[in-house]
Amino acid sequence: MMTDPIADMLTRIRNGNKANHLSVSLPSSNEKRAIAQILLDEGYIKGFDVEEDNKQGILTIDLKYAEEGEKVISGLRRISKPGLRVYVKANEVPKVLDGLGIAIISTSKGLLTDKAAREANVGGEVMCYVW
Amino acid sequence: MMTDPIADMLTRIRNGNKANHLSVSLPSSNEKRAIAQILLDEGYIKGFDVEEDNKQGILTIDLKYAEEGEKVISGLRRISKPGLRVYVKANEVPKVLDGLGIAIISTSKGLLTDKAAREANVGGEVMCYVW
Repeated sequence: MMTDPIADMLTRIRNGNKANHLSVSLPSSNEKRAIAQILLDEGYIKGFDVEEDNKQGILTIDLKYAEEGEKVISGLRRISKPGLRVYVKANEVPKVLDGLGIAIISTSKGLLTDKAAREANVGGEVMCYVW
Repeated sequence: MMTDPIADMLTRIRNGNKANHLSVSLPSSNEKRAIAQILLDEGYIKGFDVEEDNKQGILTIDLKYAEEGEKVISGLRRISKPGLRVYVKANEVPKVLDGLGIAIISTSKGLLTDKAAREANVGGEVMCYVW
């Protein structure tokens, strides 16, 4: 039984990158799609798509590799976990490597980057760091 | 003219690692030796030595590459800079990637890792992040 689907997603991306795979596929969910959208917006992945199956759907993430000056994923770290949730107030939203990376925060306004959360002046659950 | 010798040190280590060099050499200083000592203590480099020249000496840092489960440098980032010094209070000492990396803090008790600074309950200048 899978106890932390988000950790599983991060691990698949991490392993896929390490193995130079073009893409990774995994069971989809609203939260995972929202994370994929942020990774795309922030330039960390090439794209993603969702295909129907008879269950929650399959999310496929197209990985990205270094071209001149482009941002790619060098690390992912789960922060809040099912067994130990990590919440921050609006004025405590963390910076990752002094702004080199991003934190993804689950807020009352949806999943936001740390920068967007500070701009919206909201806190929330610290899902993960990406850098 | 070199305006930030610590940034230069970090850049040489970063470039040396990227090029798979066994070591990098650069002009030495007390501060650079203290940083090298912390990198050694924390498992990020293999060793370092200092040789006399007729000036400040030459610091040679032996770089480290991944063996099973060993910690190596995946990134270095200068934080405080000559043009924009960054100081933190004892209760504000940053964690790097939630403890995956280290911050090196220049304190009244010398250069310390973020963990050691918290234990000693001192703040100081945030020299750099290593992860």
